Parts: sequence; structure tokens; C-alpha cells
Amino acid sequence: MKDRTAKDQPDSSKPSRRRFLKSGAVLAGVLGACADSGNVSDSGPRTLGDIPSPYGQRSTYEKSVRYTHLSDTPEAGPSRTPLQDSYGILTPSSLHFERHHSGVPTIDPSQHHLLIHGMVDRPLVFTMEEILRLPSVSRIHFIECSGNSGREWTTPEPTVQRTHGMLGCSEWTGVSLSLLLSEVGVQSEAKWIIAEGADGCKLHRSIPMEKAMDNIVIAYAQNGEAIRPEQGYPLRLVVPGWEGNTHVKWLRRIKAVDQPYMGREETSKYTDLMPDGKARQFTFVMEAKSVITFPSGRDKLPGPGFYEITGLAWSGRGLIKSVEISIDGGQSWQEAQFQEPRHPVALTRFRLPWRWEGQEVTLRSRCIDETGYVQPSREALIEARGLNTRYHYNGITAWRVSSDGSVQNAYA
Amino acid sequence: MKDRTAKDQPDSSKPSRRRFLKSGAVLAGVLGACADSGNVSDSGPRTLGDIPSPYGQRSTYEKSVRYTHLSDTPEAGPSRTPLQDSYGILTPSSLHFERHHSGVPTIDPSQHHLLIHGMVDRPLVFTMEEILRLPSVSRIHFIECSGNSGREWTTPEPTVQRTHGMLGCSEWTGVSLSLLLSEVGVQSEAKWIIAEGADGCKLHRSIPMEKAMDNIVIAYAQNGEAIRPEQGYPLRLVVPGWEGNTHVKWLRRIKAVDQPYMGREETSKYTDLMPDGKARQFTFVMEAKSVITFPSGRDKLPGPGFYEITGLAWSGRGLIKSVEISIDGGQSWQEAQFQEPRHPVALTRFRLPWRWEGQEVTLRSRCIDETGYVQPSREALIEARGLNTRYHYNGITAWRVSSDGSVQNAYA
Repeated sequence: MKDRTAKDQPDSSKPSRRRFLKSGAVLAGVLGACADSGNVSDSGPRTLGDIPSPYGQRSTYEKSVRYTHLSDTPEAGPSRTPLQDSYGILTPSSLHFERHHSGVPTIDPSQHHLLIHGMVDRPLVFTMEEILRLPSVSRIHFIECSGNSGREWTTPEPTVQRTHGMLGCSEWTGVSLSLLLSEVGVQSEAKWIIAEGADGCKLHRSIPMEKAMDNIVIAYAQNGEAIRPEQGYPLRLVVPGWEGNTHVKWLRRIKAVDQPYMGREETSKYTDLMPDGKARQFTFVMEAKSVITFPSGRDKLPGPGFYEITGLAWSGRGLIKSVEISIDGGQSWQEAQFQEPRHPVALTRFRLPWRWEGQEVTLRSRCIDETGYVQPSREALIEARGLNTRYHYNGITAWRVSSDGSVQNAYA
Repeated sequence: MKDRTAKDQPDSSKPSRRRFLKSGAVLAGVLGACADSGNVSDSGPRTLGDIPSPYGQRSTYEKSVRYTHLSDTPEAGPSRTPLQDSYGILTPSSLHFERHHSGVPTIDPSQHHLLIHGMVDRPLVFTMEEILRLPSVSRIHFIECSGNSGREWTTPEPTVQRTHGMLGCSEWTGVSLSLLLSEVGVQSEAKWIIAEGADGCKLHRSIPMEKAMDNIVIAYAQNGEAIRPEQGYPLRLVVPGWEGNTHVKWLRRIKAVDQPYMGREETSKYTDLMPDGKARQFTFVMEAKSVITFPSGRDKLPGPGFYEITGLAWSGRGLIKSVEISIDGGQSWQEAQFQEPRHPVALTRFRLPWRWEGQEVTLRSRCIDETGYVQPSREALIEARGLNTRYHYNGITAWRVSSDGSVQNAYA
């Protein structure tokens, strides 16, 4: 129904519908302004509609899509979730962001195997049927690429889909990695695991054994059905709270080893180059972060009146404890309301009623997680980390609403 | 990956894959039985896969579908959720059951209106844009047709999709009905509302004002995107815990009135004819109920060994407090584990590890909700209500596992 995605597509000049009134009234005015019962009558057509279907599709009136800026090597790139069109805390699997390093492989689950080997007493290979028979767990978790918001360091982007869209939240179901590791008998010298995918580049990441024994899920289902191909069908890691790249997709192998492999994705990529020229490596945890999804960049408020400010907050370290919103450029902050219940390491929806008087304002959100960590300002983040990195940006985002109602990234 | 749906389709003789091992070992045996690392090698192809897509689809290897037994009037019938293929607590929107009374209308949201009128001070009409601008709420709730399990009263069906498939659970987002009712100014004489859909039959239900003022949501989103056409696009009621028929789809009108309208769906249908010939009417609340989804009817266990019994429990009155499982025909019961956190008036996933020794057993689940209500046995339910009704069956389901591993509805 909302269709603000078009504004993000290259070369698109299609006007987008907005989710606000043509009139600019406050809440009571909004409701009083539209009393015209002539629009609904009892004399409508009584024709029969469509019959039940085996597998449903969305309405043809719905146009929201993932944002992709295709490069010369589109197999090694992302698509971004349309957060401006998001509701609640769940991301529809069809709109969940992607990040591939050599494209999406087509895998027949009857031919797929998972090998667990290395420094273990009993190396094992599992078929999908075997994995599906084992004790299962389900958890609602976010996944965020550590490159999400990467351009916010230096060249901020115009829309929330482009600034924060490498983010999604799903109910994941699978088997506890720790269960499988205890069954193969990990040897005491093994301090890391290497997780490897079945995609063209055999993407692999080194993960400390302590995390592997903690809460990692070998997932085969997302939001109640099999994981989608672009999310790793038939098997992926879900590594709660850690950067998306560690959630290895199309998982085919786990090897217990005594040291990290120093692969491409943990040396030349997914490291944070600091101002002194040294690089932070294995910066796994995604720290607390929030963003307002409405109003956000390229929205246009039709006039003064009532609006609901809403957005998302998340932390790789657990629960979001509070979200505060500033409508005066960061001078004062007020508490937003949450969609309850909150889940640890999951997207958390916040909302705040707001009456816009028509003046220029800048909207900011900042969150605090259960460890007491406060999402930093952009300035403080850059002060601490410099401008050499493209990863792990979690600074406060500021949306400037001009007096004509147009909304822009205040840092762009 | 699991594909047990085919067994439910009329005239299908396609064999279905199972989610268990060919070997019949206990857990340790399962894992030890498949050590063959030759199945995974480093020499696989390194071809590029598919590029990112605007709106994803499931794998072509996934075949699970809703069950529909098309009648001469398919526009007035259900399709059923493949619960045997369910994971976690969420139902994918594409697989969520349907129940239509005159088919699925095609509605352009820019032309859709919601009228609120009757015994109110200020009748109002809302466009979708106006509704989307109002303060929003999101909640995870189940919806169950009160005709779900309706054949269990007299002629029990063979599979869990057919016995319990008019059931789904989603994250719903929309506007609180109570907010809109307070804005229109409901007059003191108004004791009910009539909610009416825009489908061919203009389906309508009478709902007491007390519930309307409590927790009903006028929903426009399901699982993070716009409601699907067959779920009421662009607007439906979500009436937490009440029979599915009250969750009026394609909602176009709410009228405040002083008495129920005694429409078709609350007189000739959706009433419970008791043994004495009198009918219970307005039996809105869906009482606590549970069912084992694996193993369930028409599964076939390949042999003795480890299995995880799993299923779903729910109550229209709030949280599920406990689920117990009997593997000895109801003589003794043991506590199942829950997927946490649990949500009130939502599907709740339970799990129990089980070692099958190869003997004939009958598996039952029973749940207790936070009010202390205990799901009744089939016998107790029939004793209380007789056999004249097709609605509100919530008795215990029993799956009989024969010594050859085949599973049947023990009451069929």
C-alpha cells in the first residue's frame, strides 16, 4: 500500500504514494476531516471472487521491492530490505536483504550434505533428512551485514533502504550447533571452527569455539517454511548478534581447528582499518543501533498535523532497553514506546506520536541495550574510529524535515 | 524439504520424502551411522549463481501447499495450512489457511474506504492513506476457524493438515479499533458493532461492544508486509482469541448498534446445536487446544530409534501454561518443552525427545492454558456437547503408531 520504494530505484521518476492525509490536521482533525459516508454503500456488486489457491502471492497492487544497484559483478553484491515499507518486527522472506559473494547456488536438498570434521573424535556427514530428524530450536533474531550503513561514514545516502537496508529479522528454526559438536567430540586443542558454504566461492569464516558451543543454530527454516535460496537453502548458520557474513549460507562443512584460517573475508574484508593504520579484526558483535523508518529520507509530509514516528532498534548483545527520540536536533530526548514483547537479538519496533507544527526539525533516535551501551552520535563514532573503514557503522541517523515537508538525511 | 503434502491431495499416489533416517538408531546412533566424509569435497564446481532479485520466491524443490478439496462452489470453501510441514510458531502468509464465503475480491487500496457509523456522534469514512497514518500496533496472534477439526466429531480425518489445518499464526499490524470508536463517539445505547466485508456476500458479524473496545485490531499488515488478498487485503479485523469468522476480511464498514443483527453467520452457521435441540449462539472464544504435528497421520517412521515429537498448542484466553504428552494411550503424561518466549493468544510450539522401541503406541497431547482450563478428551467433549455440531471441536487428538511405523488418526 505504501509505495516509497520507487524513489530508490535508479532513474525512476515515478511519484510515490504516501501514508498520510492530504489534510494537515492533528489527530482529531484527521478523523473529523473525512466524514463522508457516501463513499461506502450497500449497493456494491455481489460478484464471486477468486477461489482458494495452493500457495498465495501478494496483491498485484503491492510494489515494494528490494533495492539493488547492479554492478558489473552483480553476483557479488547486496540487495536491501525496503525498511520504509516495514511493519512490526518481522521481515518478509521475499523482501529480506541479500548479500552474495558469488551468486545464489541452486541446491537439491536430497543431494546436500553437511560434513563436520577436523579436530574431532568422530567426523560425521549428515544428509538433510538426518538433520531434520534431530532435536530442533526456533528463535527470532535479526541479521545485519556489518557493511550496513557503510557509506554513512563518509558519503551518507538518501533513504533508509539504502542507509540501513542490509538488515532483516526472522524466526529461524534448526539444530543447535553445540549439539552436533558434542556428538562429534571436539578435541581440546580445537579453539575455532571454520564454516564453509557450497556457493561458487566456497565462502568461509573462522568462528571461535566458545561461540560455536554457545548459541549458534544450523538453520533450515525461516518464518515457518524452508529457508529461501538467497538465504542459504537448504542450510545456513545463524550466529546470534554477530555480523551477517559469519552466518554462512548454503552450509556444507564445519571444521574444528586450532587457529583461525585468515581467509579473505576476515583479512582483506570485514576488518576495520583504524586511524593509526592498524586494523581491528574479528569484530564480530553488532553493537546497538536504531533508525527511524518513518518519516525518513525522501518522504514528504503533506502538512502540519499528527504523525506517528516509528522505527527499529537492535543489539547483538541482547535486549533493547530503551529508545529515545529527539525532535530538536539532539538537545532533548523523549522515550519511545515499544512493540511488546521484545526479543533479545531481534529487531525491536518503537513508536512515538508526534504533532508537526510545520517548522524545520531534525529527527534522531538513539537506543540503549541491556548492557547499558548507548548508541553513539555520528561525531563520537568517527572520533573513535576515524574514516578508513566501511564496516560497523552504528551512529545515530538524523532525518531533517524541511518546512515544505520534505525529508532528507541530515548528514548527506 | 519435507514434502508430506502430496499425501493429502486427492488421487495422489506420489511417495513422499520423510524427515528421518533410513537407519533406526537412537540419537547417538543416528549421528554415528552416517560418517562418510567422501560426500563433501573441496573439488566442487565454482560457478557463479543467481544475482539478487527484487522479490524472492521459495526454492523450486519446495512443494508444500495448502490443501483444498474443491467443491461445486469453490468460492465458498477453505484451504488448509500444511501443519505437518510447519516450523516454529509462524505461518508463512503464502501457506496460511483460507476460508471464503464468496471468493477473494480484488481490491484497489486507493479506492477502498472504511465507514464507521450507526449510533455514533460523528460518523467517519477513512481512506487507506488515512488509516496508515494513525497510531499503529503489532501483535502475534493465531486465527482458527471455529469449523477447524469439525469432522473430528463424527468422521475423523487422516492427516493433521485436514484435522487442524484451518489454523495460522502471524504478526498482525494495524490500528486499534477502540481508538477509532472513541474518536467517532459511540453512544451509550450502542451495545454491539456490525463488521462488514467488501466481498460478494458482504459477510458481516455482530461483535459485542465490550470486545470492540478491548483489543481488536483493524489490520493492514501480516508478517511484515501488506495483508495478502486471501487474508482480507487491504483491511481485516483481528479479534484476538475469537473464532476466525469474526475476523471480517476486506473490511469496509463498522456500524454501532443496540443489538446483534442475527445474520446468516450467527444463526444458521457458527452456532453449536446441543443434544437437547437448543443451539449455543455467539460462542466466540476458541478454547485451549493442541495437536502433535510430527509424527502425525500418514507419516511412516522408518524404524525404532530417536525422534522429536513436536506440535502446536493455543488458547483464545491467553498463554499456554503447559503441554503434556502421553505415549501410552493416555495412562501417563510427561511435560513437553516450549519454544520461548511464548505469546498470549498465539501458536505455541512444543517439543519432546522420544525413543521409539518399535511397539504400537498412541501419541496424545493435551494443553492447559493460563486460566487453568485443560483440553478435554474426545470422549468428555462429546459427552458434554453431543454430536449435532460441526464447530468448536477442541478434543485431544490421538495418533496411533503401528509396529510397522505407519501413523494413523486413532479415532478414524
